[in-house]
Amino acid sequence: MGTLFKNGTIVTASDEVVGDILVEGEVITLIGQSLDSDGHDVVDCTGKYILPGGIDVHTHLDLPFGGTISNDDFDTGHKAAAFGGTTTHIDFVIQPIGGSLADGLKTWRQKADGIAQIDYGFHMAITDLRDEIMDEIPSLLEEGITSLKLFMAYKNVYMIDDSTLYRAMQKAADNGMLVMVHAENGDVEALLTPQLIAEGKTDPIYHASSRPPEIEGEATNRAIVMSGMTGCPLYIVHMTCEESIDAIRRGRSQGAPVMGETCVQYFFLTVDEHLGAPGYEGSKFVCSPPIRSEKDHAILWKAVQDGTLQHISTDHCDFWYEGGVGPWKEWMEAHNGTDWVGYEKQDPSYRRPGKELGKGNFSKIPNGMPGIEDRMMVIWEHGVNTGRLSPTKFVELMSTNPAKIFGMYPKKGTIAIGSDADLLIWDPEAKHTISAETHHMRVDYNCYEGMTVTGKPVMVYQRGKKLVDGDEWLGQNGAGEFIKRKPHAPVL
Amino acid sequence: MGTLFKNGTIVTASDEVVGDILVEGEVITLIGQSLDSDGHDVVDCTGKYILPGGIDVHTHLDLPFGGTISNDDFDTGHKAAAFGGTTTHIDFVIQPIGGSLADGLKTWRQKADGIAQIDYGFHMAITDLRDEIMDEIPSLLEEGITSLKLFMAYKNVYMIDDSTLYRAMQKAADNGMLVMVHAENGDVEALLTPQLIAEGKTDPIYHASSRPPEIEGEATNRAIVMSGMTGCPLYIVHMTCEESIDAIRRGRSQGAPVMGETCVQYFFLTVDEHLGAPGYEGSKFVCSPPIRSEKDHAILWKAVQDGTLQHISTDHCDFWYEGGVGPWKEWMEAHNGTDWVGYEKQDPSYRRPGKELGKGNFSKIPNGMPGIEDRMMVIWEHGVNTGRLSPTKFVELMSTNPAKIFGMYPKKGTIAIGSDADLLIWDPEAKHTISAETHHMRVDYNCYEGMTVTGKPVMVYQRGKKLVDGDEWLGQNGAGEFIKRKPHAPVL
Amino acid sequence: MGTLFKNGTIVTASDEVVGDILVEGEVITLIGQSLDSDGHDVVDCTGKYILPGGIDVHTHLDLPFGGTISNDDFDTGHKAAAFGGTTTHIDFVIQPIGGSLADGLKTWRQKADGIAQIDYGFHMAITDLRDEIMDEIPSLLEEGITSLKLFMAYKNVYMIDDSTLYRAMQKAADNGMLVMVHAENGDVEALLTPQLIAEGKTDPIYHASSRPPEIEGEATNRAIVMSGMTGCPLYIVHMTCEESIDAIRRGRSQGAPVMGETCVQYFFLTVDEHLGAPGYEGSKFVCSPPIRSEKDHAILWKAVQDGTLQHISTDHCDFWYEGGVGPWKEWMEAHNGTDWVGYEKQDPSYRRPGKELGKGNFSKIPNGMPGIEDRMMVIWEHGVNTGRLSPTKFVELMSTNPAKIFGMYPKKGTIAIGSDADLLIWDPEAKHTISAETHHMRVDYNCYEGMTVTGKPVMVYQRGKKLVDGDEWLGQNGAGEFIKRKPHAPVL
Amino acid sequence: MGTLFKNGTIVTASDEVVGDILVEGEVITLIGQSLDSDGHDVVDCTGKYILPGGIDVHTHLDLPFGGTISNDDFDTGHKAAAFGGTTTHIDFVIQPIGGSLADGLKTWRQKADGIAQIDYGFHMAITDLRDEIMDEIPSLLEEGITSLKLFMAYKNVYMIDDSTLYRAMQKAADNGMLVMVHAENGDVEALLTPQLIAEGKTDPIYHASSRPPEIEGEATNRAIVMSGMTGCPLYIVHMTCEESIDAIRRGRSQGAPVMGETCVQYFFLTVDEHLGAPGYEGSKFVCSPPIRSEKDHAILWKAVQDGTLQHISTDHCDFWYEGGVGPWKEWMEAHNGTDWVGYEKQDPSYRRPGKELGKGNFSKIPNGMPGIEDRMMVIWEHGVNTGRLSPTKFVELMSTNPAKIFGMYPKKGTIAIGSDADLLIWDPEAKHTISAETHHMRVDYNCYEGMTVTGKPVMVYQRGKKLVDGDEWLGQNGAGEFIKRKPHAPVL
Repeated sequence: MGTLFKNGTIVTASDEVVGDILVEGEVITLIGQSLDSDGHDVVDCTGKYILPGGIDVHTHLDLPFGGTISNDDFDTGHKAAAFGGTTTHIDFVIQPIGGSLADGLKTWRQKADGIAQIDYGFHMAITDLRDEIMDEIPSLLEEGITSLKLFMAYKNVYMIDDSTLYRAMQKAADNGMLVMVHAENGDVEALLTPQLIAEGKTDPIYHASSRPPEIEGEATNRAIVMSGMTGCPLYIVHMTCEESIDAIRRGRSQGAPVMGETCVQYFFLTVDEHLGAPGYEGSKFVCSPPIRSEKDHAILWKAVQDGTLQHISTDHCDFWYEGGVGPWKEWMEAHNGTDWVGYEKQDPSYRRPGKELGKGNFSKIPNGMPGIEDRMMVIWEHGVNTGRLSPTKFVELMSTNPAKIFGMYPKKGTIAIGSDADLLIWDPEAKHTISAETHHMRVDYNCYEGMTVTGKPVMVYQRGKKLVDGDEWLGQNGAGEFIKRKPHAPVL
Repeated sequence: MGTLFKNGTIVTASDEVVGDILVEGEVITLIGQSLDSDGHDVVDCTGKYILPGGIDVHTHLDLPFGGTISNDDFDTGHKAAAFGGTTTHIDFVIQPIGGSLADGLKTWRQKADGIAQIDYGFHMAITDLRDEIMDEIPSLLEEGITSLKLFMAYKNVYMIDDSTLYRAMQKAADNGMLVMVHAENGDVEALLTPQLIAEGKTDPIYHASSRPPEIEGEATNRAIVMSGMTGCPLYIVHMTCEESIDAIRRGRSQGAPVMGETCVQYFFLTVDEHLGAPGYEGSKFVCSPPIRSEKDHAILWKAVQDGTLQHISTDHCDFWYEGGVGPWKEWMEAHNGTDWVGYEKQDPSYRRPGKELGKGNFSKIPNGMPGIEDRMMVIWEHGVNTGRLSPTKFVELMSTNPAKIFGMYPKKGTIAIGSDADLLIWDPEAKHTISAETHHMRVDYNCYEGMTVTGKPVMVYQRGKKLVDGDEWLGQNGAGEFIKRKPHAPVL
Repeated sequence: MGTLFKNGTIVTASDEVVGDILVEGEVITLIGQSLDSDGHDVVDCTGKYILPGGIDVHTHLDLPFGGTISNDDFDTGHKAAAFGGTTTHIDFVIQPIGGSLADGLKTWRQKADGIAQIDYGFHMAITDLRDEIMDEIPSLLEEGITSLKLFMAYKNVYMIDDSTLYRAMQKAADNGMLVMVHAENGDVEALLTPQLIAEGKTDPIYHASSRPPEIEGEATNRAIVMSGMTGCPLYIVHMTCEESIDAIRRGRSQGAPVMGETCVQYFFLTVDEHLGAPGYEGSKFVCSPPIRSEKDHAILWKAVQDGTLQHISTDHCDFWYEGGVGPWKEWMEAHNGTDWVGYEKQDPSYRRPGKELGKGNFSKIPNGMPGIEDRMMVIWEHGVNTGRLSPTKFVELMSTNPAKIFGMYPKKGTIAIGSDADLLIWDPEAKHTISAETHHMRVDYNCYEGMTVTGKPVMVYQRGKKLVDGDEWLGQNGAGEFIKRKPHAPVL
Repeated sequence: MGTLFKNGTIVTASDEVVGDILVEGEVITLIGQSLDSDGHDVVDCTGKYILPGGIDVHTHLDLPFGGTISNDDFDTGHKAAAFGGTTTHIDFVIQPIGGSLADGLKTWRQKADGIAQIDYGFHMAITDLRDEIMDEIPSLLEEGITSLKLFMAYKNVYMIDDSTLYRAMQKAADNGMLVMVHAENGDVEALLTPQLIAEGKTDPIYHASSRPPEIEGEATNRAIVMSGMTGCPLYIVHMTCEESIDAIRRGRSQGAPVMGETCVQYFFLTVDEHLGAPGYEGSKFVCSPPIRSEKDHAILWKAVQDGTLQHISTDHCDFWYEGGVGPWKEWMEAHNGTDWVGYEKQDPSYRRPGKELGKGNFSKIPNGMPGIEDRMMVIWEHGVNTGRLSPTKFVELMSTNPAKIFGMYPKKGTIAIGSDADLLIWDPEAKHTISAETHHMRVDYNCYEGMTVTGKPVMVYQRGKKLVDGDEWLGQNGAGEFIKRKPHAPVL
């Protein structure tokens, strides 16, 4: 016996019709109207939308970064995601410098195995492309990893040179893989930051000065040129500004196989109001590339509307605003600086280090912010409710496009016969006020604190099982599955 | 009992999955896998695609133009369309100068009533926007007409001035309607043509000289500026060249609510080879705007790929290459120049005037060419089979987008619960050589003569009834229905 | 014996060197260093610049327009010009509707003959291009008129259609002439204005709403396309905004022989501050196209710096802010509405109608503003003193370029052997506060009221004769000469 | 007593007038008409142009490169330059890796001291920007060096990273200096070259494949972004293609202080005809960036016409086509591989290695070609004689602009009182056929072999002394002077 979703407005990236969906086992088996209940569990969806589960292809759960580790892991992050309607995400494995891709993958598998609550995939972030690593790349396909991430920023940490990027693109193109880049000119950033610090410009707002939009636009253009030359599909992560949008629009019109995403925060936050907030509040909003200006917000909305960008992700990577509480230094020594979960379980008032690390030096603020839970509600409110996006376009951006681009389609990303029954019962009338007090992310602030949205998921299913019912969590650790993705995905 | 389409690859604008479709009455009622036959008529679709019926929003059947009347009418044109996989089209009612919109509509209804074999809608071409016509516009909504066409070309025939276009846009925006324009600077064309004739440049190839791409690009830009100012959704028909594609891409990125189409012929034919063909052959390929160059072909492919253009239509408007056979002048005098069908039925060797009218003066060549039957096969061959377009993108361009833009969705344009069962059983392995000898259009040449395509519709259904089975026609006059379209359609 | 200018910094469009200039008769005969005084009149120019006399190619002196006549004529306007360093201007002859070009020319000659104080030329504004006028055009060359002006704006007054513009360009190209256009879409303006008035939007600020930048950009693009097609050199007058600058930059990079000017006011005035000034003050700043925004100011500076625009003119056309004083209606009846000078001489407190005509209806405000006197000082202050323009670039924009483009070079526009000795002794240290109280223009306000400039002409010579010495006027009526210009001027 | 040039058409960047020039000592002292001969040497210039001596800011004389040394040195190269009308050039000092700027300068001074026949300056090519080199940069101003060259290409030879380029720009901006870049992405080139060789693509034509236009456009954009960020004046050398011209036009319109040059060869030579010439002939035309296509030629002409580019140089760096004749290996061992002049003097049939070094491996072909002699004649023929450039524009591009940009103005670059009397008596009627048989460059081929030009310098003066009289050389070693250039030059 299955579950019968009755009389909802079923939305895909192209269609919006009222009907019923029958789920048997983990997949959708029937779509029709006035289907017989037949002893199925019946879910009345009258007046609700039924959307495919959201996909967020850009997250960093449990990531060691900037002298600490991001708060949310494959347990808390997954729950938060699902409460917001996201049932699948792709996280980034980081190749250890000097190590192999397999080494990185092993580490990341350990973060998720037995813990994951929702389905997930991995990108491989390549940091050290030695010849043997070039040879190792095709083996990723067997692991279900089809996307390589390279950083043009973070000099002396993750940054690769152009030669490495070009070779990676050649290799990826040969193997039906996709290259993703973080596009900022790391050489210039690495010069500006110490200059600013030396001038006494240490407050969070100077993070934006150290990474101006020009260096994002420049690196974006550079990566696109290489994509055009190699024919390698390119996906530019977290695009934020006019300079880079101009570059991708030009590149696409000239035939380069390039796609791009932006993140939720880049539509809403500004340097002046948020990074420049009084006291040390600005540190909450430090991420790279930085948030920009209202002019850029408008340009980003246009870019998702006209198809220049294909996805809105979060780059979720959260850190305590007031972290570093308790004997964390001692703990780190004793535990090789890794078992933060244990530390915080030991005493719920304890906290690993967070944003406070950068007091007096913006360059030491851990980069990143929460958002995995808020994404769909915030974009629905400001996209769909304002008329900027239709529900079908919302589904395209939030679910179908990322599933296709990253080789998970049609298992994920749509409502179709045979697809995984990852379904959101989305109540377009439900009101909700976003707040750190009520959110499920393990972090002490929310970027959209106080924003009231109309429209949210009231029930969330994955592969036919209900994970969320109103405020109740019904999932379990280990239920989330790793998704083996397919190469040769389309360029949209 | 219904019809059960078993085991086909069902394609929508976003999805491509293998499954079964049950049609009961005129609509799709169930989509699933391994559905019970239950006494339904079963159509085995194994190895076939099931596509939504094609839509062509730009046709001119039975159109008095250039001193004659286009050959195909709502009988022959409809049959030809369906043989090629097009089950819905929108034709243009032409307001008579001095008359009302209702006058035009009445005339066009007569062309279709009791004759139509497939479903159809009407655009209203406004040629004489007097104040009372402004007042009449909203009444079109009750008739199911939501799109106004204005001509920036054909001076002293259809051409309106900018003031008229702007007022029409204001009125359309107020009423949730769409404005379509034929964008060529008619003032300049009307100057160039007599100059060319006076210089003895009378061959068909000089048609292109009289309408260079610059005047298309200019008018396109002009219309887009007005669209941005009025907020009126604008749809630019038959875009052909770099100049106009540049203009629409710029306009869309700046926020104007503008969309565009090109036509099949503009991807394939060139001035030098086709308009400049030996003898008088070039007259076959005279249409406005003219066919262009290979450089432009590449630009058009890019524009449909990156979403700059939303539809590929035909501007089907065919005339005999060797027409004017028999006592047609006498006939015209006796019949007010209209009953060509009767004339040609009288003696099958008789023919109304056609392309031969322009011998010695390109400006008298009736503008237009056949294509309604070839459209989907030719674009499948050169779009899908070459990898330029995915099957989903093909469906989006050929069916879903035009249905949405023109207010026919979800009745038309997709395969979804409750939608009309306009279905194509498309065999991707079937080979077919296009030729005037075998095509169903009533015209003595084909623009793609000799082109072999792989992939064609082997069965065609409309609202659940089979129209085409292989080479057999199963439809009937009067079965085609007029589609009342809805206003406030989305801008894609 | 001549006049010897000693030890000045001689500036041309390319050079800046310290030296002496000997003027004998009306022309420059020697340039050197430490030249012998030899009994010449010696003018010590130590610490001063010697610049070629300024040229303003866009003025409307003594122009019947908007129900009155512009204030400054070939007497007062010329004196004001010279006090500001402008020794040559080109005014517009307006062809009377129904009349010939010769008719217009005759009228304008009468305005200047025996009155002119400085040298001047005429453009021919064509308003009614009948076939016989086409034939008359070449005869202008004998009159020394090489430039045709056409209006794409002012519907039902001056506006021509595209066909007329195209034909004029063909004719001009054949005869080595230049076409100038006022580029605004007059059809749209003529629609918007009555709509605004009907909505009660009658204040001066709504003048800007009736002529938004979009319609300037559109018409600019349209004219440029025709220039590219015909090969006719095109000069776009008074460009004001991003939309049109984008169009000309694109056109030039694609090879169209197009040039452009802006006017002083478009660098400084804004809709919000000036057109929206309290009370009826905004009427002072009504001109067409309207003044724009600060964003556009920055774009215009960039355009003159990078060579996209070639000249900065004034479009000087001034009207009393508080006009219509005295028995002007009776006077008009008695004098066919023309002899305003006599009227105002009769009683110095009398004034012809002016800006007050448009109280309660912005569309009746006479379009235009004063500036012929201020131009060079204001641009020196904000161009040269700020480092935006070098002195050579200043000379290029203010004198050399217009002389070349309009066929007056090398008689005018430079300091070279054999050129007219139109020389400015420009003191870069002299401070001057611009004000209606002290200016020489016959008008009761100044657009730059209160602006203090550093740098002004302290002596002004024309053809070797001193016109201005400090505050003293040394010129005389009739001394100004008509300049017969040469065709086939270069495209810069 | 001086030299009196009578009755020539004197051309500057802005003016063209007939007159006389008196030269006394090394400078121009008087410009007039009908000047008294007064016992001066009189040069009748009737029917001739008098042009300021040409300036070529991009040459490599006596340069160790690619395993040999470029043929022409400060003796032969200077004579050849002067025969072609170039009287001043700027060569590149190359900082030795690990050494100081002073070390490089010392080496280059030795190449010129006592040898130079014409005036010259030096740019400083920085290859190793250590902290002490940063500190050394300002000392260049005392040496009269105001321009720094950095290479984004030639990985592992000259290439610097972005951080270095940015720091150099900051330093240059602080000191009123200019940065020049060779803009090609060296990382990508360094990857492509061995890949091509490994594929057996070793012929000269594959040099173009190793450095496609995309990598030039990319690096150009990158440098411009940094120029905009730092405010440092940037001069991009040898621009060749649409990609980079698009980038500079965009950069200039957005306000970056960027200028650019192209070289003569990029207007004329093509990959297919020249690099792909039969046998090994293509090696003659190997330079970096490579020559391109006819499409690019047209784009370059437009760019010099509309002011996007400011100068046409040569990048003269010539090597024997058939070199390596005689016991050169032994000689090199005995002479530390430097005294090639002695080697070739020993036996006039001996030749140092040249283009033949790259047989079987295009990457070993010494990069560069001759042109210093041909530059002005070839551009006059194809620029001025075709109407693309006026004589004033020719002077601007060939002499005035480079003098201004590089801080030599007004000593060099114009004909003005007090300027150096570097004068060309240019006969616009003189015909000359360019050929390796008759040219003065020390190299066995000419890129324009067989081109007949109309217009050439028949007499050439530097600082008042005649260097060239028809075919006769009148100069002498050591007469050429080093030019100390001034900082804070204008951005044009």
